[in-house]
Amino acid sequence: MLAGALGLAASGAITGARAEGQEADIPPGVPRWQKEPGAGVMRPPYGQPSPFEAGVIRRARSEGPPYPTPQAAISLTPLQDLHGIITPNGLHYERHHAGVPAIDPALHRLVIHGLVARPMIFTMAEIMRFPQVSRLHFLECSGNTQNWAKPSPTQTVQDTHGLLSCCEWTGVALKTVLEAVGVKSSARWMLAEGADAAAMTRSIPVEKAFDDALLAYAQNGERLRPEQGYPLRLLLPGFEGNTSVKWLRRLKFGETPWQTREETSKYSSLMPDGSARQFNFVMEAKSVITSPSGGQRLEEPGFREISGLAWSGRGKIARVEVSEDGGNSWTDAALQQPVLPKCLTRFRLPWRWQREAAQLASRATDETGVVQPTHDALLKERDARSYYHYNAIQNWRVGVDGAVTHAG
Amino acid sequence: MLAGALGLAASGAITGARAEGQEADIPPGVPRWQKEPGAGVMRPPYGQPSPFEAGVIRRARSEGPPYPTPQAAISLTPLQDLHGIITPNGLHYERHHAGVPAIDPALHRLVIHGLVARPMIFTMAEIMRFPQVSRLHFLECSGNTQNWAKPSPTQTVQDTHGLLSCCEWTGVALKTVLEAVGVKSSARWMLAEGADAAAMTRSIPVEKAFDDALLAYAQNGERLRPEQGYPLRLLLPGFEGNTSVKWLRRLKFGETPWQTREETSKYSSLMPDGSARQFNFVMEAKSVITSPSGGQRLEEPGFREISGLAWSGRGKIARVEVSEDGGNSWTDAALQQPVLPKCLTRFRLPWRWQREAAQLASRATDETGVVQPTHDALLKERDARSYYHYNAIQNWRVGVDGAVTHAG
Repeated sequence: MLAGALGLAASGAITGARAEGQEADIPPGVPRWQKEPGAGVMRPPYGQPSPFEAGVIRRARSEGPPYPTPQAAISLTPLQDLHGIITPNGLHYERHHAGVPAIDPALHRLVIHGLVARPMIFTMAEIMRFPQVSRLHFLECSGNTQNWAKPSPTQTVQDTHGLLSCCEWTGVALKTVLEAVGVKSSARWMLAEGADAAAMTRSIPVEKAFDDALLAYAQNGERLRPEQGYPLRLLLPGFEGNTSVKWLRRLKFGETPWQTREETSKYSSLMPDGSARQFNFVMEAKSVITSPSGGQRLEEPGFREISGLAWSGRGKIARVEVSEDGGNSWTDAALQQPVLPKCLTRFRLPWRWQREAAQLASRATDETGVVQPTHDALLKERDARSYYHYNAIQNWRVGVDGAVTHAG
Repeated sequence: MLAGALGLAASGAITGARAEGQEADIPPGVPRWQKEPGAGVMRPPYGQPSPFEAGVIRRARSEGPPYPTPQAAISLTPLQDLHGIITPNGLHYERHHAGVPAIDPALHRLVIHGLVARPMIFTMAEIMRFPQVSRLHFLECSGNTQNWAKPSPTQTVQDTHGLLSCCEWTGVALKTVLEAVGVKSSARWMLAEGADAAAMTRSIPVEKAFDDALLAYAQNGERLRPEQGYPLRLLLPGFEGNTSVKWLRRLKFGETPWQTREETSKYSSLMPDGSARQFNFVMEAKSVITSPSGGQRLEEPGFREISGLAWSGRGKIARVEVSEDGGNSWTDAALQQPVLPKCLTRFRLPWRWQREAAQLASRATDETGVVQPTHDALLKERDARSYYHYNAIQNWRVGVDGAVTHAG
């Protein structure tokens, strides 16, 4: 019997014995919802979560860098409350540089110019007439996970890793549109510009534009949410989130990068010699255990599943290992199918907790052979004052009292 | 140049020439959203669609059977407005028999009894400690698509096929829980009962319970929506929707089916000889073109993509063919990857419309070799007064004026 094998029945966690006994954990009486009709259909016509799930929301970091305004700030996906790999659109993380513009799609235009044979201006209706592509991809902010210095033990996985979400994106392959405008062979870089008040701009290698880039206008079936770029965003699978420019209004082709604010002052990586590495686009192999995770408490000993997410900007996840002893020994976790390139992968490992102290960690390997590094290994290659592209192994400490805390 | 090859530039649909000329379709002035900061993060903390998409909602059928109350009714997914294969949770179709109960998850219990070695009562916390499984599956109401008689030409695909949705479902494999309670070998059927005021009940073959059935508590990452069974539902992949009993409170094992209201008076299939076929669970191979579809109008000639959805309760979709002439000739459509079992599959085919009349149709074949029938072929096997399990080919008529109408 599986439950026995897993320690469920033995632990009392599964209260089957009560069904035959007097001490059954049965709420008294017949609940109201079994006695009278409930709400009608389409109330509301666009459905909402249960009021009992009102705490499952995007949040600011409990600790972290101050932001000057709510318009130049972040919000974090509640990974500890989510299952599977899809992020519902209402919980997708946010990073804005000048707030969320309320764009009328009938007035929105995409301009493509510079080193192209035929500069063009597209309406949304025109963009949506091109052949469609749908793909599941993660997006991660390059500022996700600030474990460079000593961790704050009370942080949750929403605090540490919540600048991470995953949706099914639909749009047109950018290369299809670029074949229409005729990008010149001298073009090496593409400038992408947003229609927000920050006019967020990034320089992108032309190879990426012709590879798997999308002009996306839908996420998880419906049109983009305003905070995800409605009505149109660039989507660069596997690249740091900010390069997937939201509210996309302009693509310009040129021979050299434009050295915009967001690739000089920001979004560059500090090296140990004091230099800054620019155009560090790819989000490297990374993983995190989401259950159990920081701020949770194991109430009962016995069976639990260790579950988490792994991803790589280089392709598919090939392997996830889990450690219960802070990285001294590792066990392969099961990967939930389908495992897709540049997409979150859910991993799972059965665990029996017997009120002992433990330190849980996960380590991802992608199909190109990149292995998620330890904190110390990462710090050998990067300056300790770094901010972007932290992808080291995350440790959660489990106390004998069941309390789970952030251990760096 | 692809755009030229597709007839885009030639048709004027792509207005590239304007970018260099005086008649550019550029809204005057700099829009407000480029001049002032937009909304801050987490406004609201659980995000909502753009106000410009306020028409993308669940709706009642524009025509169809009357329902006695809003609590015993349906709402339809707006397939014509969706992309890819995921249905966002707020747009999942509904079919309720006594409305949506507002269940407190702390008071909800699942009872498993009857022909089992150890009858048990489970809390939600206990169910959620079992090993998890996530899978993408469609759900379709067996009453979807009422094309038995003469069609009403004004119906949209939301009217005809909107009792169809697809999510990533997470829960515990039912067989895992059943191994804990020890189902006796004499058990042949399982009764599933909901905690709504209808106490919706269905008898399910025990083989399905031990195959791919889930006790699901999450959809598209977050916990179930109230109208999808919060806090717990049965999920029977590929079976007619009502058997995936929502608000699941009880599973009973026995030797024979229980002959409940919903498998005698309802959800049985009328045969030509006047008899009723019961326990007709599997949703057979089916497909529908969602773009263009009923109620839409082609404004411009030239390139369009024909796009739609295909699915089968028996496994994966193997092939979708599209006809532009009402079924006289067929062309294979491309299937968007990943193609998953008992899941929606998006198909696409390029099309050039030159203001000619056309009749568009799609035909699905699943991996078991089942081919979606024509209306006439289906009617040879079923009584014309039938209500459930209509899976015949759907035709959309395109007029020379571009108007798209329902042609049965």
